[in-house]
Amino acid sequence: MKKNMIIGQSGGPTAVINSSLAGAVESALEKEEIDTVYGMINGINGLIEENIINLTEIFKDKSSELNRLRLTPAMYLGSCRYKLSDEDSEYEKIISVLKKYNVGYFIYIGGNDSMDTVDKLSKYVAKNGIDLKVVGIPKTIDNDLVGIDHSPGFGSAAKYIALAVREVAYDTSIYAIKSVHIIETMGRNAGWIAGSSALAREGGNLAPHLIYLPEVPFSVDKFISDVKNKLMKFNSVIVVVSEGIKDESGNYISAKGDKTDKFGHVMLSGTGEVLKQLIEEQIGCKVRALEPSVLQRSAGHTSSLTDVTEAFNLGTVAVDAAVRGECGVFSSLRRTCNKPYAVEYFTENVSIVANAEKTVPLEWINDEGNDVTDEFIDYIRPLVRGVPQVPYRNGLPDYIDVSHLDKKTQEYS
Amino acid sequence: MKKNMIIGQSGGPTAVINSSLAGAVESALEKEEIDTVYGMINGINGLIEENIINLTEIFKDKSSELNRLRLTPAMYLGSCRYKLSDEDSEYEKIISVLKKYNVGYFIYIGGNDSMDTVDKLSKYVAKNGIDLKVVGIPKTIDNDLVGIDHSPGFGSAAKYIALAVREVAYDTSIYAIKSVHIIETMGRNAGWIAGSSALAREGGNLAPHLIYLPEVPFSVDKFISDVKNKLMKFNSVIVVVSEGIKDESGNYISAKGDKTDKFGHVMLSGTGEVLKQLIEEQIGCKVRALEPSVLQRSAGHTSSLTDVTEAFNLGTVAVDAAVRGECGVFSSLRRTCNKPYAVEYFTENVSIVANAEKTVPLEWINDEGNDVTDEFIDYIRPLVRGVPQVPYRNGLPDYIDVSHLDKKTQEYS
Repeated sequence: MKKNMIIGQSGGPTAVINSSLAGAVESALEKEEIDTVYGMINGINGLIEENIINLTEIFKDKSSELNRLRLTPAMYLGSCRYKLSDEDSEYEKIISVLKKYNVGYFIYIGGNDSMDTVDKLSKYVAKNGIDLKVVGIPKTIDNDLVGIDHSPGFGSAAKYIALAVREVAYDTSIYAIKSVHIIETMGRNAGWIAGSSALAREGGNLAPHLIYLPEVPFSVDKFISDVKNKLMKFNSVIVVVSEGIKDESGNYISAKGDKTDKFGHVMLSGTGEVLKQLIEEQIGCKVRALEPSVLQRSAGHTSSLTDVTEAFNLGTVAVDAAVRGECGVFSSLRRTCNKPYAVEYFTENVSIVANAEKTVPLEWINDEGNDVTDEFIDYIRPLVRGVPQVPYRNGLPDYIDVSHLDKKTQEYS
Repeated sequence: MKKNMIIGQSGGPTAVINSSLAGAVESALEKEEIDTVYGMINGINGLIEENIINLTEIFKDKSSELNRLRLTPAMYLGSCRYKLSDEDSEYEKIISVLKKYNVGYFIYIGGNDSMDTVDKLSKYVAKNGIDLKVVGIPKTIDNDLVGIDHSPGFGSAAKYIALAVREVAYDTSIYAIKSVHIIETMGRNAGWIAGSSALAREGGNLAPHLIYLPEVPFSVDKFISDVKNKLMKFNSVIVVVSEGIKDESGNYISAKGDKTDKFGHVMLSGTGEVLKQLIEEQIGCKVRALEPSVLQRSAGHTSSLTDVTEAFNLGTVAVDAAVRGECGVFSSLRRTCNKPYAVEYFTENVSIVANAEKTVPLEWINDEGNDVTDEFIDYIRPLVRGVPQVPYRNGLPDYIDVSHLDKKTQEYS
């Protein structure tokens, strides 16, 4: 008997989560086993509130709309940050909505917190003999997911940061005065994004001159000494720093490390500003701190084609797995060759990814703790390659309309 | 008798100053009247120090290198911020270097401070009967130059900001909670860049919801009331604000308005942060301030083809004018038609642009002082159109090598 599928998105945005959604929708629309494809607005929250849209109606036989979806950043279905409790009543509510919509396949796109939802829900249905296939699709700009060679969304964020660092280097190269520019990237505990700025070095550009990752303790004295040494050689010194750098005692360098989000994560910002003040006080040259902030995670206009393509494929792989009868897994990929770059897709047990974290191997950080090694760069380089053909209109990317998000949320807010 | 040409760049960078340089070089290399084309490194400063490179050697018969130059942001020749004094000795030094290099044509690319240099130097050579043709090429992201329909560099900055605002809007649309994002743009006294963010509104996107320009006095009470009203209608409210907004008494809203640069300009930043704190205190919802900073002026990867093309043409027009014997002028353009967009090029007396400033007409700002009118948008729209074919290598824009800048400046620092 045909069942319906429902898809949700959760966690923070990336440039390519909608590409995974497009892959999942395109695949689901072709499946004989699947009748209607639904989307939950604002993740599991929206499901509980029955805030549900019909994706079959929206995308069936509309390949150009699916293509626009594929190349639109952030989340067409909206997001939530909601941690499932251990209360049976919560699962019963979810299952009752799914039964009402005759859902047999539940697809959830997200990071390690979202995979926690996939894990818990799949265990609940197994324990209670409920006919529901629960499958995850991974995403995160942080590249900190285990069980996958690299996370969809990371390649585009890496590309954005490398590009921004290169353009800042060009911008600042023009003045014959000593200056320091500090670019703060996202990355709480993993320095993947900060490290990827090393890709900016090409064509005569030596910036960034210093890179600091959260995997190694940060010493203020060493930092000041590093910057002074670089200022002896270069007029314009570019420093990239991950928001989450910590001192020897494990305290965040950021002055604002005292707020936490719903999952208990410390909310960070201001690391670049703290370092800027240190340089002003201890060196005294011109210094500027830049924080690309959310621009680095939703820059669809400069996404990586490799990333867009892999995210799409991971969407199709998840739907295939669900229809095959898999449950409690997520779609994944492994690198089978680096030169030329090639990957293969598979599914992995979701319990290994939920709440786990993959940081940069210490051997990929140089001995001084202020740069990444060639091995790191070899790993990153293929992930930023290729320029997708983003549709343009009136000079700007012609992204798909997401105005349904604000309307829907208004209804139940 | 053949004479040589020397070209310099000055002031702040834009995405398309090198396109003007490419236009000037390409044109000069074709001229029978011109022997060698030189470049002064770091503007008039470098000229005085005889920090000079041979552009004929670098670009003659190298059309692909000229094309890379055309699409590389910032300044291939470096910049300076140097105001010519009224001392004869300074002009005598400049003229002695120019005579040594047999220079008959002096081309200077810059904003209104740089046009001041063109103005003064052209008056000096006229007064002293020196055979030197001094011609300016305009540039500035601020679009505040008079005597030209719009400034080269502005279209690309406008496009960057519109794009950034659209992507931030997508990023923030995903959460079903009330939030405010404040994006602070460059623009001391002119709100052109802030206003251009209105182009982000298309395809269902209504952001930015509020835009504040420095041309009208900023009221904190009105601002808080505006934001509260928008929060009644939308979950995610996007505010764009020019760095230079001032209160009724003419005081900058920025807390950091007490530093000045060499030209006496007040150095601004932090306006967005000040507004963020106001919202935190008086409204209390989630709020984030973003400052794209230098990223908005050197984003070659997303420059406007219209801008790149016009900047190139203004370079050729300036060289043509110099060879024709014009002096004390700058190359300019006027819009002959808006739909379809068309311009014509001409030269204008440089004294009208030096130290003058073109702000947004008050009738192009709405009555509430929190948005721009359709006339503003009609004026801006053609300027961001077109996507240049930026060459890519390994996933990133393959800009021309500018490492000569740091080497040269080391020599005389």
